[in-house]
Amino acid sequence: MQSFAIKSLGEGKFENPRKHSTVSDDFIPLYVSEEFMKACGHTSENDGDALYFQEAGPREKIFFDPAKTKVGIVTCGGLCPGLNDVIRSIVMELWHGYGVRQIVGIPYGLEGFIPQKYGHALRELTPESVSTIYMLGGTVLGSSRGPQDFSLIADFLHEQGINLLFVLGGDGTMKAAEAISRAVKEKGLVLSVIGVPKTIDNDINFVEQSFGFATAVDEATKAIACAHTEAVGMYNGIGIVKLMGRESGFIAAHAAVSLSLVNFVLIPEAEFTLRGEGGLLPALKERLQKRHHALIVAAEGAGQHLMPETGRKDSSGNVILQDIGQFLQKEIKAYFKEENMPVAVKYIDPSYMVRAVPANADDRVYCGFLGRHAVHAGMSGKTEMVVAKLMGRYVHLPFSLVTRQRRKLDISSHYWFSVLSATGQSGLKGMI
Amino acid sequence: MQSFAIKSLGEGKFENPRKHSTVSDDFIPLYVSEEFMKACGHTSENDGDALYFQEAGPREKIFFDPAKTKVGIVTCGGLCPGLNDVIRSIVMELWHGYGVRQIVGIPYGLEGFIPQKYGHALRELTPESVSTIYMLGGTVLGSSRGPQDFSLIADFLHEQGINLLFVLGGDGTMKAAEAISRAVKEKGLVLSVIGVPKTIDNDINFVEQSFGFATAVDEATKAIACAHTEAVGMYNGIGIVKLMGRESGFIAAHAAVSLSLVNFVLIPEAEFTLRGEGGLLPALKERLQKRHHALIVAAEGAGQHLMPETGRKDSSGNVILQDIGQFLQKEIKAYFKEENMPVAVKYIDPSYMVRAVPANADDRVYCGFLGRHAVHAGMSGKTEMVVAKLMGRYVHLPFSLVTRQRRKLDISSHYWFSVLSATGQSGLKGMI
Amino acid sequence: MQSFAIKSLGEGKFENPRKHSTVSDDFIPLYVSEEFMKACGHTSENDGDALYFQEAGPREKIFFDPAKTKVGIVTCGGLCPGLNDVIRSIVMELWHGYGVRQIVGIPYGLEGFIPQKYGHALRELTPESVSTIYMLGGTVLGSSRGPQDFSLIADFLHEQGINLLFVLGGDGTMKAAEAISRAVKEKGLVLSVIGVPKTIDNDINFVEQSFGFATAVDEATKAIACAHTEAVGMYNGIGIVKLMGRESGFIAAHAAVSLSLVNFVLIPEAEFTLRGEGGLLPALKERLQKRHHALIVAAEGAGQHLMPETGRKDSSGNVILQDIGQFLQKEIKAYFKEENMPVAVKYIDPSYMVRAVPANADDRVYCGFLGRHAVHAGMSGKTEMVVAKLMGRYVHLPFSLVTRQRRKLDISSHYWFSVLSATGQSGLKGMI
Amino acid sequence: MQSFAIKSLGEGKFENPRKHSTVSDDFIPLYVSEEFMKACGHTSENDGDALYFQEAGPREKIFFDPAKTKVGIVTCGGLCPGLNDVIRSIVMELWHGYGVRQIVGIPYGLEGFIPQKYGHALRELTPESVSTIYMLGGTVLGSSRGPQDFSLIADFLHEQGINLLFVLGGDGTMKAAEAISRAVKEKGLVLSVIGVPKTIDNDINFVEQSFGFATAVDEATKAIACAHTEAVGMYNGIGIVKLMGRESGFIAAHAAVSLSLVNFVLIPEAEFTLRGEGGLLPALKERLQKRHHALIVAAEGAGQHLMPETGRKDSSGNVILQDIGQFLQKEIKAYFKEENMPVAVKYIDPSYMVRAVPANADDRVYCGFLGRHAVHAGMSGKTEMVVAKLMGRYVHLPFSLVTRQRRKLDISSHYWFSVLSATGQSGLKGMI
Repeated sequence: MQSFAIKSLGEGKFENPRKHSTVSDDFIPLYVSEEFMKACGHTSENDGDALYFQEAGPREKIFFDPAKTKVGIVTCGGLCPGLNDVIRSIVMELWHGYGVRQIVGIPYGLEGFIPQKYGHALRELTPESVSTIYMLGGTVLGSSRGPQDFSLIADFLHEQGINLLFVLGGDGTMKAAEAISRAVKEKGLVLSVIGVPKTIDNDINFVEQSFGFATAVDEATKAIACAHTEAVGMYNGIGIVKLMGRESGFIAAHAAVSLSLVNFVLIPEAEFTLRGEGGLLPALKERLQKRHHALIVAAEGAGQHLMPETGRKDSSGNVILQDIGQFLQKEIKAYFKEENMPVAVKYIDPSYMVRAVPANADDRVYCGFLGRHAVHAGMSGKTEMVVAKLMGRYVHLPFSLVTRQRRKLDISSHYWFSVLSATGQSGLKGMI
Repeated sequence: MQSFAIKSLGEGKFENPRKHSTVSDDFIPLYVSEEFMKACGHTSENDGDALYFQEAGPREKIFFDPAKTKVGIVTCGGLCPGLNDVIRSIVMELWHGYGVRQIVGIPYGLEGFIPQKYGHALRELTPESVSTIYMLGGTVLGSSRGPQDFSLIADFLHEQGINLLFVLGGDGTMKAAEAISRAVKEKGLVLSVIGVPKTIDNDINFVEQSFGFATAVDEATKAIACAHTEAVGMYNGIGIVKLMGRESGFIAAHAAVSLSLVNFVLIPEAEFTLRGEGGLLPALKERLQKRHHALIVAAEGAGQHLMPETGRKDSSGNVILQDIGQFLQKEIKAYFKEENMPVAVKYIDPSYMVRAVPANADDRVYCGFLGRHAVHAGMSGKTEMVVAKLMGRYVHLPFSLVTRQRRKLDISSHYWFSVLSATGQSGLKGMI
Repeated sequence: MQSFAIKSLGEGKFENPRKHSTVSDDFIPLYVSEEFMKACGHTSENDGDALYFQEAGPREKIFFDPAKTKVGIVTCGGLCPGLNDVIRSIVMELWHGYGVRQIVGIPYGLEGFIPQKYGHALRELTPESVSTIYMLGGTVLGSSRGPQDFSLIADFLHEQGINLLFVLGGDGTMKAAEAISRAVKEKGLVLSVIGVPKTIDNDINFVEQSFGFATAVDEATKAIACAHTEAVGMYNGIGIVKLMGRESGFIAAHAAVSLSLVNFVLIPEAEFTLRGEGGLLPALKERLQKRHHALIVAAEGAGQHLMPETGRKDSSGNVILQDIGQFLQKEIKAYFKEENMPVAVKYIDPSYMVRAVPANADDRVYCGFLGRHAVHAGMSGKTEMVVAKLMGRYVHLPFSLVTRQRRKLDISSHYWFSVLSATGQSGLKGMI
Repeated sequence: MQSFAIKSLGEGKFENPRKHSTVSDDFIPLYVSEEFMKACGHTSENDGDALYFQEAGPREKIFFDPAKTKVGIVTCGGLCPGLNDVIRSIVMELWHGYGVRQIVGIPYGLEGFIPQKYGHALRELTPESVSTIYMLGGTVLGSSRGPQDFSLIADFLHEQGINLLFVLGGDGTMKAAEAISRAVKEKGLVLSVIGVPKTIDNDINFVEQSFGFATAVDEATKAIACAHTEAVGMYNGIGIVKLMGRESGFIAAHAAVSLSLVNFVLIPEAEFTLRGEGGLLPALKERLQKRHHALIVAAEGAGQHLMPETGRKDSSGNVILQDIGQFLQKEIKAYFKEENMPVAVKYIDPSYMVRAVPANADDRVYCGFLGRHAVHAGMSGKTEMVVAKLMGRYVHLPFSLVTRQRRKLDISSHYWFSVLSATGQSGLKGMI
């Protein structure tokens, strides 16, 4: 029996005002598919065994006294639809559900913990101040990239008297949250750190579908529809759309399978070739000869093996990628010039337009539950964990599990076969 | 061990052209939450045991010879976003995946099986004819309500030489599909009948979230946002929105929890009172006195206990409900007149606008998988079953399970408590 | 030469901070089409003569000293997309363009002028407080219906020291604005009253297309598309959509001509018959027999001649209309029962959903100009006038012109012939 | 009196089946503003005089015999929202209004006239084949760029027996249409050539607002909203949006004035400077110091004077522009590095996403009228002219007028002052 234990600051001593519908700390079994486990770099002891997780939800007793608890909320890294919904939900649940009255927003990500350096002012958060923020994309708290000095952060939390910290961010942020938790403990302070995993790329380990992903796919399909329209508008028109996805092709794959107009989906996980048998370019030619228009969707991390490395990193420490969109345009134009076949290449890079929008209805519901469950976990004294939805259930996952690696699209999975079948690109080299 | 067996027409004799990524007929365990089981009228033998389901997906061998198979597709009952996506996906998978070339659309639901009475002509379906139907709401095949003579249907299927029938419809339709299957067998014919469960109300048993539901909620929140705007636009403005949901309040509840502007959600599962302590009207008054505007969302089946029964039924045999929207308007106006408190009541009934739209990106992905899995099941010779997503996995469910009852929103569930907490209506009588 | 003079409080004494791009008080000629004039109840002296209007825009000298001017803004009557854009634009132009610092919002329409009775508190308006209100439908100031005591209003304006009043509302509101202006003058006060004409029905006299109308039509076509989907989804399906338009059918006609799926548009201006030759019902039958689905759009004021008068009025003094939607459903069902022809009637009444949405991009631009021109007019000392766009030019219109009558859709116009041609309903009695 | 005569093939000999609501060939006067005339490179003889135009609409007699008339429709150049609506409207009016039965679509722009070279097949157009094309962006006929041999085109029209040709395209296309008309005349053939002017940039001479422009602005504001969200999401975040507009900044200006979140609008007509007093970069710094985020919108043709010319041309003969988006990013990053002020630059180039979408409701209405009026003009024997809306009236314009020059945004106009006032950028050098 493999179970994922969750750290706790101690026993609950206070009555939970959310007395209805509490859950225990018992573990619930979930039969996670092998396909998913593989994508998460996990192996079950005995094939087909269940994994055991702590269920999310209000506990009978809570660890923190609502009247004395001070809460901080911080958003880190790139924007993602739903951030404001999670913030709103956390504030509403703390205020109306638990009676907590001291809630502060940490401005501009980790920078907000170091006012002596950055000068950003804390913001008081109340039901009124967050009431309509769901209408806005992005995060009303602001964000920033990259790490900060954890010891200074711990000092700040101490000075401010913050007992409970909600951290919205990606795997890098969750590593930082772990480091903050450790730094605080070293100073002998009591702090619960609860994460809500955020990634537009849907690549956080053991998180089946991250919030905002459905919205991003919605937006991505709009760009694809436009590229399709442009492609069919010209004889031998070729539409190319670049979508977010540095290390994983989930948005590209999902959008392509949603709007099945796409002929080629290029993702970082499947290393394609350009020329020769099974190459993209001859396949593209064949497609054009048959239908006189074609549509390519590429995740930004796709095809990096075909280009020299940039050797540069951004402020979050991520390698700066080569531009697959520019590369494809150049290669395609060169190839069809050689082939003496006039084509019209139309390139769309919606970039931030897939992520800087407000969440759709489903993502808003999801974010609402994530926020409420994060509060339940934090108030009950859990720490160094995130809330997540797995196999239809809300559970607690330890930081260590979600930061172990980034999840990838498994190209031997049934999901990917469905993508190949929807696009018809299974003849390409490197796709399986 | 509770497992849900699936009927089969016989052993697979043909090589599956979808050779990649096949699955076996072994059962996979799923830990369905007790909350969900309760809502489905199901009890596990031993508390906490897994339930075992047959996994969906292509089989190594198939029962039907693609070259000789003739397929029918029919859509029944009310419209639902995604019907055309399922039709498209079935046709594409049959054609490109299995090489089936004879596919016919049965026009206008069960009526289409009785041309001698209704005169509707069959439609040939090809990849070209279904290629862009995802852009349209509704069903390109047309639909109808109510049953038809099953013996005549069996005769028609025999005459047409149809071996494989895909039925898209609600629980009533699945009962009809079962009856068709029985009638065919009595005549000694070989036919596989595969269902894709459809319900805008999200109330099909053992189906966690039915296709089109996310889209419907998206649309419902637009009506709610308008009612909110109207309510705040007048002093003591009261917005009322009626949403679909004859016997279950899923759309109303989900939309309210998504767009947390709603103060009162009324659903068929929770019998509220109007006056006296814990009544809706005094609570509404209290809300207005505090904030000067209020927002009520009512499922169409809510509050029927407060009105006399109509005693009439529609062509599907459903009881015709009293109009909760008209009723609420009348009662609210009367109450506040008595209370001598001027209010402005604004009523919105989006009716078919929540269901007659094309599916959103997420629902399109979902419908694509349902269609493909339905084809895999049918070609492998399974019958009298539906494909469904349960706990994140695609599985086969026998007709008997999904037609056993309609799923209801469990008002002792954590989900409903979250709704109450989002609206703040837990003080109302009958809510818990 | 017919010119429309504008009243003025006096000569401009102050330098206009908007020194660029000023216009003079000279009249500009506009060749308004006879069709339009007829719809506005106007006759030109000599056929084909131009009409002369005062052009809108900043004047070289202004009447009010920005440092001492106090401005009030009030919104009256039903909601309309763009109200918040006009409010925002007025505030921005006053503040940034003219340096006015005292701007107050009058809450809840005319009620806001009588705090002793209604108790609503004034709201200070600043660039910051209005900066993002364009994202919201409705009016952030609130509104109300019906008249109030003009003498009390004048007293209130005097007490508050308001010199310049912007009134956003319909023709009834403009009559009230005129009465306020008179009442103020009687008390010897100096006040400029500038109107921005608002009507979702597009029926304000001499206003070609009122702000919000384009947005409303956008929304209306969504309801029509849904009704179309429902109609084609059933054999002999009949979709009916009721749209706003009490006395004029502009929304219905415009939406029908935009989404040319509509077979019958019923408007108040064209009295149709139900039965007999040229009647709606036989024409509907003919359409169904040919195409097996049909789509009807009815303005709410259509067909009133076929129903008994209600004899009741609402708080604005408007006659309460009979429900054409219910009426059509009943008559259609009865007729086809008699004809022994089964039909499926699907009714959609989007009601407030066409008007309670934020304005689209074009309407936002339009509202921006209306707001700025209203400020230019007010600061220069004009009064008892509205700003409007006529023949592509922004001009000043005296209150008397816009309140003279409501504009109707002229059923002998080329526009209406285009509607008839788009729908194919010219065979109906009463259409021409 | 300045009037714009329209060429005609001869007297109408046939009864017009559109007998209602006909107009005469008399000229109607329009008082076009001097601002607009200046932008169109036109001067009135006497200041303030009216210009006289031929009114659009059905004529009492028509030149072509509907039973014998063969019509061609062609779409040229870049895509634009509404092309399919115009095509649909032309086909519907020809078929239902005039009874014409021979209508062909010329595929892929001017290429479609030279089948011997390109091999594209003509497409028959009927009400059924165009009935739902309004749902699609782009053009169902396909398009291409660049000129073709006019003599070959004339031969093709002769062989096909086409009498009436509708040409949808920009000013280059209208020049080509004129050349086709001349080439046909030289061969002694009788052909009417009617244009519907199309430009996403809104820069066609004497066309106030071209179809599709409102839709493009709608889409453009979505990109701007996303850039704003990204900019406020980071401390000192700078959002940059590049929008279409090679020689004129209408989309950029209109979008900025619609969504007044933009701080700097850069257009080709106003040559800004980067550094020094009145330069963009110091102004940007000042803005950031005050508000910590900033938003720049640049038309693609803006700032070309700051970069070396590319010296290359595309297939339409247009100069290939330098990339103002890349340039701004580079310059901004360099400047703030020098200034030692960390900023976060977020760049969005929605490119084809602003033009490859279906038209909005208003544009659909507009396109419907343009198509109908084009048919009225063509059937009555007019030729070498376009239909356009000017000062609220539909009129005929000779080719010569619309091809005389491209319309520019006049930076001394009241419109541009309003943009400056909305953005607050009037301090920049070169803006006025």
